[in-house]
Amino acid sequence: LVGVTDTCLSDTLSIAEIAADLGANAVVASAPCYFQIAQPELLDYFRKLIAELPLPLVLYNMPGLTKVSFEPGTVRQMLEYENVIGMKDSSGDLNVAAEYVKVVAERSDWTLMTGPEELLAEALQIGVMGGVCGGANLFPRLFVDLFEAAVRKDAEQVELHHNAVLHLGKNLYQIGHYSSAYMKGIKCALSCLGICEDHMALPLNRFAEQERLVVKQKMEQLRQLEVPGVQSVLAGYSNA
Amino acid sequence: LVGVTDTCLSDTLSIAEIAADLGANAVVASAPCYFQIAQPELLDYFRKLIAELPLPLVLYNMPGLTKVSFEPGTVRQMLEYENVIGMKDSSGDLNVAAEYVKVVAERSDWTLMTGPEELLAEALQIGVMGGVCGGANLFPRLFVDLFEAAVRKDAEQVELHHNAVLHLGKNLYQIGHYSSAYMKGIKCALSCLGICEDHMALPLNRFAEQERLVVKQKMEQLRQLEVPGVQSVLAGYSNA
Repeated sequence: LVGVTDTCLSDTLSIAEIAADLGANAVVASAPCYFQIAQPELLDYFRKLIAELPLPLVLYNMPGLTKVSFEPGTVRQMLEYENVIGMKDSSGDLNVAAEYVKVVAERSDWTLMTGPEELLAEALQIGVMGGVCGGANLFPRLFVDLFEAAVRKDAEQVELHHNAVLHLGKNLYQIGHYSSAYMKGIKCALSCLGICEDHMALPLNRFAEQERLVVKQKMEQLRQLEVPGVQSVLAGYSNA
Repeated sequence: LVGVTDTCLSDTLSIAEIAADLGANAVVASAPCYFQIAQPELLDYFRKLIAELPLPLVLYNMPGLTKVSFEPGTVRQMLEYENVIGMKDSSGDLNVAAEYVKVVAERSDWTLMTGPEELLAEALQIGVMGGVCGGANLFPRLFVDLFEAAVRKDAEQVELHHNAVLHLGKNLYQIGHYSSAYMKGIKCALSCLGICEDHMALPLNRFAEQERLVVKQKMEQLRQLEVPGVQSVLAGYSNA
């Protein structure tokens, strides 16, 4: 699922064509991110986008960065398009998520996901179906364990894993002074683990050596967590 | 002066190359418009942009759409780059503009312009050097008259033209319910006058016939204004 959000229709379609050529299964698009458009404009934009997209579409509610929310009534009108297959909500507002749960129930094939991992446990409780969480790149088993515990209503295990997720955030997502600390922390940790490079496109930059050292220290601390989904990843990790 | 704002460095540079090939004199760039970056990140981004730009650069402070302001200290650090030649401030905050006036005074070749035309008269009073105002596309003489009256400190004429500018906004920029009404109103009026088409890139759309009729009525009302810069444009205009 490849993000194709941009400022206008033609650029979003260009990215979607590239994603399709490279074998993506679907694309993910938030509201266009420069002009502050109204709901009828948002709906009109998506209708035109959907008509030309080469792949299925997942809606992405990211008002903190786009300044434009998908209101529930707008989402309802998207239900009629077969090639729209779900939604990710990163509003961080569980009341909004609860509204989406109601709307999305009308299309049994839709998937409704949440973004902020610190709200995943609660979001699952109110009917959200899963998460697209940054930390799952680092500790996939942790998030699967949380999800499965929520599905079988094992409150104790949900709490254990939820607390580990919070711990992860407090350790890795608050290094430095910038709001990009979350992304940089995850990418730097992935790089320390040898999973991928931590290169970022400007205007963002990867952590410098100083912050990288802090990430390494924090991972040592995380290793002390008695949570299988964390230990399994960090077992072989040494702060070299 | 061609706008090159985008979400990342490479796309901004691509637009700048096209602008240079087509003969532009300079480019105008605001903060990149998706991620909410901090001032050191903004400065780093612009340093890298400036190093690669094929044309001189005008900074564009547009926090309402980019979520990121140029703080005065950041602007001060841009003064050292010869190919940065000025700034447009669309914060709509005259306190911010006054800070810029102080900073920019250190480079006598810089031009400091304001965006919001309803603040042009006041901005000129506090030391801003001019405006890049949407309404000047329709009524250039009106804005030049306002500017010249401000330069010769003719308070009565400033007020006359300032009031005409406010009148223009009340008539043409508040049609319909969307925050894009300002741009759509100007473009539609330009189209009614035969100056250019009112096509807009999605996610925005030109006014439909219903709003176009309102624009035509409003232009009839504007014609009654006893202001040369408005009358000269509308003299030959008939609501046909």
